[in-house]
Amino acid sequence: MLVVMSKSATEQHVKDVCTAISQLGFEARPMPGEQRTAIGVVGNDRRVDDSHIRGLPGVANVIHVSAPYKQVSREWRQDRTVIELTNGVRIGGDEVVVMAGPCAVESEEKLLEVAALVAKSGATILRGGAYKPRTSPYSFQGLGVDGLKILAKARAQYGLAIITEAIDHASADAVAEYADIVQIGARNMQNFALLKHVGSLGRPVMLKRGMSATMKEWLLAAEYILNAGNPNVILCERGIRSFDSATRNVMDITAVALAKTLTHLPIVADPAHATGRRDMVAPVARASIAVGADGVMVETHPRPNEALSDGPQSLYPQQLDDLIGQLRQISEMLGRPLGQLSR
Amino acid sequence: MLVVMSKSATEQHVKDVCTAISQLGFEARPMPGEQRTAIGVVGNDRRVDDSHIRGLPGVANVIHVSAPYKQVSREWRQDRTVIELTNGVRIGGDEVVVMAGPCAVESEEKLLEVAALVAKSGATILRGGAYKPRTSPYSFQGLGVDGLKILAKARAQYGLAIITEAIDHASADAVAEYADIVQIGARNMQNFALLKHVGSLGRPVMLKRGMSATMKEWLLAAEYILNAGNPNVILCERGIRSFDSATRNVMDITAVALAKTLTHLPIVADPAHATGRRDMVAPVARASIAVGADGVMVETHPRPNEALSDGPQSLYPQQLDDLIGQLRQISEMLGRPLGQLSR
Amino acid sequence: MLVVMSKSATEQHVKDVCTAISQLGFEARPMPGEQRTAIGVVGNDRRVDDSHIRGLPGVANVIHVSAPYKQVSREWRQDRTVIELTNGVRIGGDEVVVMAGPCAVESEEKLLEVAALVAKSGATILRGGAYKPRTSPYSFQGLGVDGLKILAKARAQYGLAIITEAIDHASADAVAEYADIVQIGARNMQNFALLKHVGSLGRPVMLKRGMSATMKEWLLAAEYILNAGNPNVILCERGIRSFDSATRNVMDITAVALAKTLTHLPIVADPAHATGRRDMVAPVARASIAVGADGVMVETHPRPNEALSDGPQSLYPQQLDDLIGQLRQISEMLGRPLGQLSR
Amino acid sequence: MLVVMSKSATEQHVKDVCTAISQLGFEARPMPGEQRTAIGVVGNDRRVDDSHIRGLPGVANVIHVSAPYKQVSREWRQDRTVIELTNGVRIGGDEVVVMAGPCAVESEEKLLEVAALVAKSGATILRGGAYKPRTSPYSFQGLGVDGLKILAKARAQYGLAIITEAIDHASADAVAEYADIVQIGARNMQNFALLKHVGSLGRPVMLKRGMSATMKEWLLAAEYILNAGNPNVILCERGIRSFDSATRNVMDITAVALAKTLTHLPIVADPAHATGRRDMVAPVARASIAVGADGVMVETHPRPNEALSDGPQSLYPQQLDDLIGQLRQISEMLGRPLGQLSR
Repeated sequence: MLVVMSKSATEQHVKDVCTAISQLGFEARPMPGEQRTAIGVVGNDRRVDDSHIRGLPGVANVIHVSAPYKQVSREWRQDRTVIELTNGVRIGGDEVVVMAGPCAVESEEKLLEVAALVAKSGATILRGGAYKPRTSPYSFQGLGVDGLKILAKARAQYGLAIITEAIDHASADAVAEYADIVQIGARNMQNFALLKHVGSLGRPVMLKRGMSATMKEWLLAAEYILNAGNPNVILCERGIRSFDSATRNVMDITAVALAKTLTHLPIVADPAHATGRRDMVAPVARASIAVGADGVMVETHPRPNEALSDGPQSLYPQQLDDLIGQLRQISEMLGRPLGQLSR
Repeated sequence: MLVVMSKSATEQHVKDVCTAISQLGFEARPMPGEQRTAIGVVGNDRRVDDSHIRGLPGVANVIHVSAPYKQVSREWRQDRTVIELTNGVRIGGDEVVVMAGPCAVESEEKLLEVAALVAKSGATILRGGAYKPRTSPYSFQGLGVDGLKILAKARAQYGLAIITEAIDHASADAVAEYADIVQIGARNMQNFALLKHVGSLGRPVMLKRGMSATMKEWLLAAEYILNAGNPNVILCERGIRSFDSATRNVMDITAVALAKTLTHLPIVADPAHATGRRDMVAPVARASIAVGADGVMVETHPRPNEALSDGPQSLYPQQLDDLIGQLRQISEMLGRPLGQLSR
Repeated sequence: MLVVMSKSATEQHVKDVCTAISQLGFEARPMPGEQRTAIGVVGNDRRVDDSHIRGLPGVANVIHVSAPYKQVSREWRQDRTVIELTNGVRIGGDEVVVMAGPCAVESEEKLLEVAALVAKSGATILRGGAYKPRTSPYSFQGLGVDGLKILAKARAQYGLAIITEAIDHASADAVAEYADIVQIGARNMQNFALLKHVGSLGRPVMLKRGMSATMKEWLLAAEYILNAGNPNVILCERGIRSFDSATRNVMDITAVALAKTLTHLPIVADPAHATGRRDMVAPVARASIAVGADGVMVETHPRPNEALSDGPQSLYPQQLDDLIGQLRQISEMLGRPLGQLSR
Repeated sequence: MLVVMSKSATEQHVKDVCTAISQLGFEARPMPGEQRTAIGVVGNDRRVDDSHIRGLPGVANVIHVSAPYKQVSREWRQDRTVIELTNGVRIGGDEVVVMAGPCAVESEEKLLEVAALVAKSGATILRGGAYKPRTSPYSFQGLGVDGLKILAKARAQYGLAIITEAIDHASADAVAEYADIVQIGARNMQNFALLKHVGSLGRPVMLKRGMSATMKEWLLAAEYILNAGNPNVILCERGIRSFDSATRNVMDITAVALAKTLTHLPIVADPAHATGRRDMVAPVARASIAVGADGVMVETHPRPNEALSDGPQSLYPQQLDDLIGQLRQISEMLGRPLGQLSR
């Protein structure tokens, strides 16, 4: 930490800041300059809480040198986290994974129909919402536990692993019982009570990036889950908010590559939610694998026009097959095979 | 709703869209133009779910004419919502209210000391966090129910109404028992499960705007609470995220005036969280009342440098007194007295 | 400047960075810590160009302590810059100024009609575009020099000072000849060639903030003008770009108060361009004066519906009169009279 | 265009709007609904200027159906624009191009050294700034015409085409004389006077996207150049501004794919300026080609640590070679060869 004093700070101000730093248990190193004094803080093994310093007289600014997160960082753990699911699929290792399925579970018949085409396409993880966080209270909110049971049936039948979203404590408990990965949506990324709870459930968690979350905030949200005892967290970049309404969100493709340098956790990309347009899903999915993502999540539906939600961003079955073919070529070029079902 | 067809759409495409509109129970009115056909949708009394239309062949765009929210809108209810608290203070009526207090409840002794100065300053509502949603899991997370009991003691002693934040179902139940207003923080603005829950508790709710929430999303979040049976919602503008790190957030001052035209709900402003700097709180609080806010929320502490959280944005007692003096003059100029304790 | 080394940096890396700092003529002060070494740079009297340092092996980050601007900063010059115009009106002193007029100069007859009502309202500076930078090449681009001559006629007749926009070297020369203040629009805020040119013309310049310019970039743009020899620069906050399309831009009200702490230059606010809606102009103008602006710029038109551009954000004459009455009350409450014509 | 009336609009209001639409030469089609009336505007062959309509009594909103640009749109021209340079290299056709070189031209010796390695790497276009638009007036501003002469020498020697930036009329004239492509930087994207000027020079123009420009604004800026008589415009996505400072900008990868659907103009990507970090350049360049870009522009330097500007984002020669190898594989997978020098 570096405390920057204002030009007009007195010697007494500098002294008082040094005293405050000592009282926090650290060493203060004043560096008088031409223009102003800066005071280095030495001896901390992680980010210092600056609230006692920032408001002191003569302090112009407090600059943090260390990242505020710890257990999620690559400096803390050099080896990549590799998560192995019940169907043998691994996330974060050499393989690249494809998660596919409908936006929402609508009925057993429809879900099993999608599951069949997902399994055939070469994807290994089935997605589908049973609890849907919808912007409007008047929109379809999901089938709940009934939806989870349908997903479990699809898993039994096709060997796919299951990922589905939890929106509160009760749904998280249910999802952890029926699914392989508990998804936390963008709107709940800083629902810290829920993060702590899923951190205690022992199931892998996929944490979507909040719509305007910085990398730091996202990694700190993941830190909540690790700190609650669950090391198996997958990050998911799904687009951030910007000034342009040309697409629903802006896919922050660099964040995927950057995450690889900052954390040991796996990261996947969700081009459908990032763009909101079917014709953008394949190009952005290709870009995601080319930039280094550990996988992609896409939406598919046998007849997208009939879907109850997010139909316009769902791939037709043929599009899914073509896309997976392209992703295989790009990932193999980068030395990574596409993950597949073992049976 | 208006469905815009692409230039290359065929007559059959137009026909199919008209059929789909009819199947939703509405009337389709095609308008062939020089360049392209647009199809008006008539007969809907609120926003139509467009997912079945948006992906049809030949559709270029779907444009919504009606707002997606309903019960919160001024078109739905012309009269302003006025919320009367147990200490007689009214929010949303002619009076302008000041909410003040520490960021967090740290101890009974300290809280009662702040409450005394808040009551003396002319503010009528005491704020103070018992449950703190913190970005980092390693930061102070609040005293919980013990904090609520301390707040209740301050209420009994000074006649101030109490506002404090809830972060999940359990804390919401506790807050509703001890406080006058349940606060939902920016990070939980789209925690829909929590919104539904506080909508069922019968206590006024203050809903902070999410860091990157549009006006529409914010009003839809309020709609969740009204739709769950609770008409007493106060909006709170607390700054939005932007590209400039010169201040913590950007106070969206226009949103306050705009909310007045869109909804009948009261709106207050939180200049401390919007700016993150003590020296910006007073100017931005003045601006908030000048633009038409129904109140402001500020942080104060007898000795800000000792505060466990958000000290750097807390007002010194003298600053609070001076600010309230200025706010009184501006609000009276606009024909609104400053609300005061009845006893 | 502080150079933060990565955890894995070797002693040799640290040594090499220290050598590089010495070669730039500064002193290096290494501070070994628990986790990593940071190296303070001492002896610079302004921001050091970090390009030779940032890419060296072992460097994790370079943090700047000093602001990159100089002549515009309050540390460089404590006294406020006060600009006196030919009609005696002063900007940046105690008085608050109102600039008003049509978006564009459309004809002599219409401009003189507006000028009459502007003078009557109590405003002292007449605005009106002769060169219009329009987003589309198919929109009205202004009358050019003919427009300037009309503005000069209005000045002669009503004693108002004139402000109007320049868009390139040639128009800047013409504007400097006919007007009292040369306006640089938001889209040209980083047109550095134009900034240098208007810095050489000897006329006061009003520099609008770019749509996504940080405070630093804005002040550095002003620095270009001062550095070219022109100390008379007025800043103008006109709203920044955000994710919400509810209003055209987001008025960054805090930036006005913040500018007062960072620079000695005057700052005015433009609520019409910040909001794009007539009904938002008065509330946001009140907020601007309440937050501490040195003035506001508004658009007015005798019959806004007939205006060739930006009619929807122009005030009706009666609205202008009412607004100026309110602004007078707020500014006097803050101890600042409203500037007026001396004759 | 669709005019949406407010719920409280009277029949007379609707009539007046219809009259105003007729006076503009178009046909009005009122659609009375349950809640409000909407009025379709028919007969326009491009976007109508709405300023005369938007402010009329009873008008709630005006919604544009047509895009505001014309000559740049794919609806206007289905065939892709393919630009052939003097060295035979084509942009916008089947081939993918690589532009590489130093940030700035620093000396003849250094530039020729870079040109040699660029030619050897397989890139076909040499970049290098002679006029540098710098945020600070105290930074290196380029060698001007001397720099252009050096670039011309490199072209003669290595057969590379030359791209370099113009910042005002005079520099544009000089660049058009010496270089193959005139670059307009992000900060000048809406410098309309400059756009018109380069539209008249007869040289291909590369137009970088403004830091917070929407797709619409960017395409309208290109429209200025086409409208001035120059059909040879290349778009360049170089990252947009966001709330996160983790990287310098956010590469809007989707914009590349989206541009392909909206316009017939070629589009390339600039991962160095989008990210500002050397270790992000290769992954993001791969993503750019995977998403469908017609080329990439990168920075390279034999010894990046010695570069006068933007060294930290320059590739080492070996990194450039490796990257071009990867780009070749991805582009060939998509059926596009990498463009090469004919000699």
